[in-house]
Amino acid sequence: MSALAERRLARVALTWLTEPGTWSVHRLVDQLGPVAALDLLLDGGAPDRALRSAVAARSAGGDARAVAEQALARTERLGARLVTPEDDEWPAQVAVLSRLVLRGGARRVDLQTAPPLCFWVRGAGPLGQAFDRSVAVVGARAATPYGTHVATELGYGLADRGWTVVSGGAFGIDSAAHRGALTAGGLTVAVLACGVDRPYPMGNAALFDRIAETGLLVSEWLPGADPLRPRFLIRNRVIAAATLGTVLVEAAARSGATQTLNRAIGVGRPGMVVPGPVTSAMSVGAHELLREQPKARLVTGVAHVLEEVGRIGDDLAPPVRAPERPRDQLDDEATQVLEALPRRKPISLESVAARAGVDLRTTMRKLSMLEELALVIRRDDGYALAPVEESGNRATGTSTPA
Amino acid sequence: MSALAERRLARVALTWLTEPGTWSVHRLVDQLGPVAALDLLLDGGAPDRALRSAVAARSAGGDARAVAEQALARTERLGARLVTPEDDEWPAQVAVLSRLVLRGGARRVDLQTAPPLCFWVRGAGPLGQAFDRSVAVVGARAATPYGTHVATELGYGLADRGWTVVSGGAFGIDSAAHRGALTAGGLTVAVLACGVDRPYPMGNAALFDRIAETGLLVSEWLPGADPLRPRFLIRNRVIAAATLGTVLVEAAARSGATQTLNRAIGVGRPGMVVPGPVTSAMSVGAHELLREQPKARLVTGVAHVLEEVGRIGDDLAPPVRAPERPRDQLDDEATQVLEALPRRKPISLESVAARAGVDLRTTMRKLSMLEELALVIRRDDGYALAPVEESGNRATGTSTPA
Repeated sequence: MSALAERRLARVALTWLTEPGTWSVHRLVDQLGPVAALDLLLDGGAPDRALRSAVAARSAGGDARAVAEQALARTERLGARLVTPEDDEWPAQVAVLSRLVLRGGARRVDLQTAPPLCFWVRGAGPLGQAFDRSVAVVGARAATPYGTHVATELGYGLADRGWTVVSGGAFGIDSAAHRGALTAGGLTVAVLACGVDRPYPMGNAALFDRIAETGLLVSEWLPGADPLRPRFLIRNRVIAAATLGTVLVEAAARSGATQTLNRAIGVGRPGMVVPGPVTSAMSVGAHELLREQPKARLVTGVAHVLEEVGRIGDDLAPPVRAPERPRDQLDDEATQVLEALPRRKPISLESVAARAGVDLRTTMRKLSMLEELALVIRRDDGYALAPVEESGNRATGTSTPA
Repeated sequence: MSALAERRLARVALTWLTEPGTWSVHRLVDQLGPVAALDLLLDGGAPDRALRSAVAARSAGGDARAVAEQALARTERLGARLVTPEDDEWPAQVAVLSRLVLRGGARRVDLQTAPPLCFWVRGAGPLGQAFDRSVAVVGARAATPYGTHVATELGYGLADRGWTVVSGGAFGIDSAAHRGALTAGGLTVAVLACGVDRPYPMGNAALFDRIAETGLLVSEWLPGADPLRPRFLIRNRVIAAATLGTVLVEAAARSGATQTLNRAIGVGRPGMVVPGPVTSAMSVGAHELLREQPKARLVTGVAHVLEEVGRIGDDLAPPVRAPERPRDQLDDEATQVLEALPRRKPISLESVAARAGVDLRTTMRKLSMLEELALVIRRDDGYALAPVEESGNRATGTSTPA
C-alpha cells in the first residue's frame, strides 16, 4: 500500500472510531499525520478519557483498519469516492471551522466543530469547485406551502444565476431548494448526515438519485452509516462553512436550521433569514434569529441574497422603490397648489391660491406647469384636478394616509 | 376677552394662516407668544418669503381672527374642545419634536416638523393622560387579511393590558387597530389629518363616532378642514411623538406608514415593525425598513411590543422556547447512548456501547437512567427506545435534520 493510500485509509478509520468534528482527533492528525494519529489512538494513547473510552468502545466492534478497507471497497462499488485534504477537489474553505466559536454553546455538538477529516462524494463534478460559488438554503422539514414556495424560488433563482444550491436533503425547505435548483438546470449539493448510499429520508430517494446525476451527494460518514440525531448538527457546520452564505427560510423555535445559521455567522459568513407571517409557527425561529442575532440579515429574495454573497457588481439588489410619478418631481409650492385643487368642481384662481397658501402669481405659474404635466385641467369656470389615470381614485390612490 | 382667551384665539388663527409644523411660526410663538406672533404675521412681518406669501394668500380669503372666532364657536357647537399648551391635558411629550431630524428628508413635510400649536379634541377623557401609556399601530390602507388580523390582535392585546391604541383612522391597518382596542373595551385615539367633524374616510364615520364615545378624536386642524394630501404626513409626526412607540404592521414601498416609523425613531422612540410573507407587496415597506433602518425592531406580537415600550417588569416578553423535554436535560454520553438505540428491534448492551462510542460501564449507567426517564425500555433481548408519546415518530419527531 502506498503512503498516500495508507493516509487515506487512516482517515477513514479515524472517522469510524470517532465522530467527525472531534477537536482532539483533528489536532492529533494535524501534528502527527493521520497514520500516526490512528496508531496512537488504537494503542490507547488518546489525550482524554472521553476519546479513549469512545475508541475502546468502537474497537470492541471490529478492527478499525479492516473496517476502513471494507468501507473503501464499498465506496468503489457504489460509484462513490473518498475526498481528502490531499485531493485537488478538497474544499479548502472548510478550514474556516478552526475559528468557529458558538456563543453559549455547551453541548458536545456545539463544542466539537473541528474541520472534516474526509468526505464521501457521489456525483461527477469536483467537490471544491461546486462549493466555490455556492449558497446554502436550509429550513424546517414541516415547511408550510409559503416556505416551500420561497425555498423553491430561491433554489431556482440562485441556480439560474450560476450559483450552487447547497442543502441537507431533508423534507420541506431542503427538498424545495434542491428541486428549485434542479428545475433551473443548475448545480445542487446535498450534504448528508449518514452514508451517501443511505437515502434518508427514504421518501427522498428519487431526489437523491437526481441530485447525484447532475450535482453531488456529500457526507463525512462511512457508507452505511446511520442518520443518528446528533449527526445532523455535526453535519450543519459543513453546510455553513463550505458555502459563501446561508439562508434560513422557515424554522420553528430552537430548530436545527437556526443552528446552521448560527454556525455560518460564527465562521464569518453572511447569515440570512427570510421572514414570514408572524401567525406561522414555522417562522418563529426565523423571527427570533432576526431579533436576537445581531448579524442575521433579513432577505426577501434572490437579489438580497446575492447582495450579501455576491462579489460581482451586477448581483447587487436594486432598492425597492414605488414607481416614479410626475407628481413626485414637483416642488413644494406646486404640490401645495395641486393638493388644494378639488377633484370635481373647478374653483377660481383666487380660491386655489387661498387654499394652497401660495401667492397669486406663483399659483398661476404653478398651475400652468401642472397643466402641461396633465395633472390639472383649466375650464371656463376655473381649475380642477385632471381625471386620475392610475388605478384607484383620489381618495384611495393618491393621498397618503397613515 | 381675557388674555388667555386671546392667546387661544391667536393659536387658532395661526393654525389657519399657516400649516401646522412650520418652524418659523413655532419659533415666533416661542419668542413673542401667540398674540404678538399673530400680529407680526398679519402685519407682513413674517421672517421669510414663503411664510409671508402663505399668510398673504390665506388672508385674502378672510380675516384670521374672525375665522378663528367662528372656528371656536363651531368647536363648541360640535361638543369638541380646543387644547393648548396652557391646558393641564396638553400632552407635553410632543415637545420632543424639537429634536426630530429626518435623515435624507428634503421635502417640506420632512423639514417642517415643529411641535403643534394646539389640538382639537372630541371625546371625554383628558388628552395627555390618554397618550401617557400609549402605542401607535399604523400601516397600509390596502391591508391584507393577514395584516388586518395582526393589527386587530395588537389593538386588542394592547388595550386589554391597559395601553391606549393610537392610530390615524384610515382604512385597513388603522381601522383594525382601533377596532381591536374597542373590542377589548380599551382606550383608542384617532389622530386625524382634517377637522374632527369631518369623518375621513366617510366609510369610517361610524367608527369615529364609536371612538369619540369612549376614546378621543384629535386633530391639529380647524373644524371643517379638508384632508389634503400633505396633511397626512404632517399629522404623522404627532402620532410618532405623542406615543411611547410606533408599530408598523403592513406597508407598501415608500408609504406614509413607513414615514411615521421614521419619525418615531427620529424622536428616539421605539420603531417596531411586524414582518410578513415576502410574497406580499403589502410587506415590502416593512421589510425594507427592517433592512435599511438599523433602529427598526422586528416584533411579532404584543409581548414584543411591550418589551420595547414597557417600563413595567411583567410586560417583558419571555423568549420563545420549544417545550422542555426530558431528553433536553441529558448529558452528552446519555444522549449518545439514547441516539444509538434502534426504534424497534432491541439490541444488546455491547452493541449499544459500540454504536454509541461509549464504554460499557458508562453505557450501562446511562441506560438505567434513561429507563427511569421512560425513554428506554429493557426487554429480555436487549434495549430499545420507548414508544414515542409526542406527535410524530422518530424520523420526523425527534431527529433534527437541516
